[in-house]
Amino acid sequence: DNKGNIISRIHAVWAFLSAIGEVPVNVKFFVEGEEEIGSPHLAPFVEEHKELLKADCGIWEFGGVDHEGRPNIWLGLKGILYVELRVRETAVDTHSSMAPIVPNAAWRLVWALNSLKSEDGRVLVEGFYDDVVKPTRMELELIERIPYPEEEVKKDLGLESFLKDLTGAELVKTLLLEPTCTICGLNSGYTGEGSKTVLPSTAMAKIDFRLVPNQRPKEILKKLREHLDKRGFNDVEIVVHGFLEPAKTPVEEDFVQLVIRAAEEVYQKEAVVYPTSAGSGPLYLFRNVLGIPMVSVGVGYPLSRAHAPNEHIRIKDYLLGTKLIARIISDLGARERIRA
Amino acid sequence: DNKGNIISRIHAVWAFLSAIGEVPVNVKFFVEGEEEIGSPHLAPFVEEHKELLKADCGIWEFGGVDHEGRPNIWLGLKGILYVELRVRETAVDTHSSMAPIVPNAAWRLVWALNSLKSEDGRVLVEGFYDDVVKPTRMELELIERIPYPEEEVKKDLGLESFLKDLTGAELVKTLLLEPTCTICGLNSGYTGEGSKTVLPSTAMAKIDFRLVPNQRPKEILKKLREHLDKRGFNDVEIVVHGFLEPAKTPVEEDFVQLVIRAAEEVYQKEAVVYPTSAGSGPLYLFRNVLGIPMVSVGVGYPLSRAHAPNEHIRIKDYLLGTKLIARIISDLGARERIRA
Repeated sequence: DNKGNIISRIHAVWAFLSAIGEVPVNVKFFVEGEEEIGSPHLAPFVEEHKELLKADCGIWEFGGVDHEGRPNIWLGLKGILYVELRVRETAVDTHSSMAPIVPNAAWRLVWALNSLKSEDGRVLVEGFYDDVVKPTRMELELIERIPYPEEEVKKDLGLESFLKDLTGAELVKTLLLEPTCTICGLNSGYTGEGSKTVLPSTAMAKIDFRLVPNQRPKEILKKLREHLDKRGFNDVEIVVHGFLEPAKTPVEEDFVQLVIRAAEEVYQKEAVVYPTSAGSGPLYLFRNVLGIPMVSVGVGYPLSRAHAPNEHIRIKDYLLGTKLIARIISDLGARERIRA
Repeated sequence: DNKGNIISRIHAVWAFLSAIGEVPVNVKFFVEGEEEIGSPHLAPFVEEHKELLKADCGIWEFGGVDHEGRPNIWLGLKGILYVELRVRETAVDTHSSMAPIVPNAAWRLVWALNSLKSEDGRVLVEGFYDDVVKPTRMELELIERIPYPEEEVKKDLGLESFLKDLTGAELVKTLLLEPTCTICGLNSGYTGEGSKTVLPSTAMAKIDFRLVPNQRPKEILKKLREHLDKRGFNDVEIVVHGFLEPAKTPVEEDFVQLVIRAAEEVYQKEAVVYPTSAGSGPLYLFRNVLGIPMVSVGVGYPLSRAHAPNEHIRIKDYLLGTKLIARIISDLGARERIRA
């Protein structure tokens, strides 16, 4: 889902070169092709090339317009800790008539999982919320202005209502700001048609924790281990499949304000500013490790079908997105000249 | 696992016919070939042919000797209720970034399951134990005499200890007399390699309840539905895959005593009498519906590999098992003559 954005940015730079022979500011492109598999080589690369990657500000890899053509500007991404919980109780599956005396891996997993989250959605891992930073008043105000297509999403998912009957600003606030603990997969024993009286030797659950500032995935992993051990689930193994820290740039940041103004002038519509996305990505390496103010703007639209067959962008969005990048470069150049 | 038993019984009857031209008592064979798929046609057949199936006593379809060559006599089987719990929360799987506002079928299932059984193994379905009949003093005495190959079973399963560190008579008592609630299978969402950030739309668990006298599977099913509804799990669907009532014949029954004496004389070893098996089968149709005293004796041995490749019996067990059937027929004939 990033091909259009990369090319539009190259085009914007190319436009300066062809029109005036130079670009108003020094532009660095950082292109990495492993985001969809969790960017396994990115963190060490960034750590090793801090000087090379230094920058005053940065534009992240996704974005576009909403249903009404308003430019959307994203200031952050959630972090993630993705783990697999594994239980093995016996060497082999056995007959379920043995259930009164032989431990069952599926039950152990259910009890361990149940200890992680209550029915009202609260994550019960001890200390899970300790480091969560409250949103600022400004962020809450931005969230109140974010339109969310509630009816379309409900229809698409076949939902009668969202969790806790949430609607409006509370719905968007919850979606963007709540850290989560999600079972992504469960497997144990016999899962075919009809019945088989088996007592499963193994069971597993795949779980992602979506994290918000300033939760740190390695700290959450430590707390998860401690939580399970404390409740006697020492037999539950934790296999880590990946982690990313949360990151965001404050809306008050000069660069963010510059981008908002530029977008509203290029699109001639009010910008919708998301203090963070509900999704995750390795933004923290640029925002937190390198200390660069980062925003996401781009050339997509809500029906771009990212990751799906016939993924596409529209020419009008491409042109506007390219103009926005050029405008940002131009405004940054003007700012430099004023400061100099 | 019943071929040897059927033929040995036919052989026993044939022996009377060839030796003395008649059988001392009237013998009925009831052969059904669907036990391994849950005997779906047996109950209506028995209900419709009560007169045809009338009998003073009956011999069930399994049995044999233990490791030390002692004849094992089984007086009952547990019942079973096999259900599948199904949860569907959304029309399709969605991205796990939606977790703060979209219900997750896997979590719903985990919470529902957790409400069914506590970590100490107690089934929490309201009223589950209401109808359980306490074992008699005689049954407890029989259980104390049952040898159980604890070390072999632990080694086979790779277990350090049985649940609650049970050993000896308490272990056997728990295995034979405790009703259970066993997760036989779990499935939801992504279960492949590595990670996929999906919020599952559906989840399912296969569960068997092993039941003891006088628990009735249809009553337990009703209680399960009530239990889930009362806790707000109306969205959890129950699909029934099968049920069998528990059944047993009291050891004090004349016929049981006759079989024990016959076995000890034929095998020249003390008989081991199981008031019930930990396994299940449609015994109740003969014991409860037709009211026939039933025992299980047969021609197997512990390494017969029932249901596995190279399933077999030993000739010596076959001969002894056949002699025992003949001896039972003979003793029943003698009893009839005395009574007449």
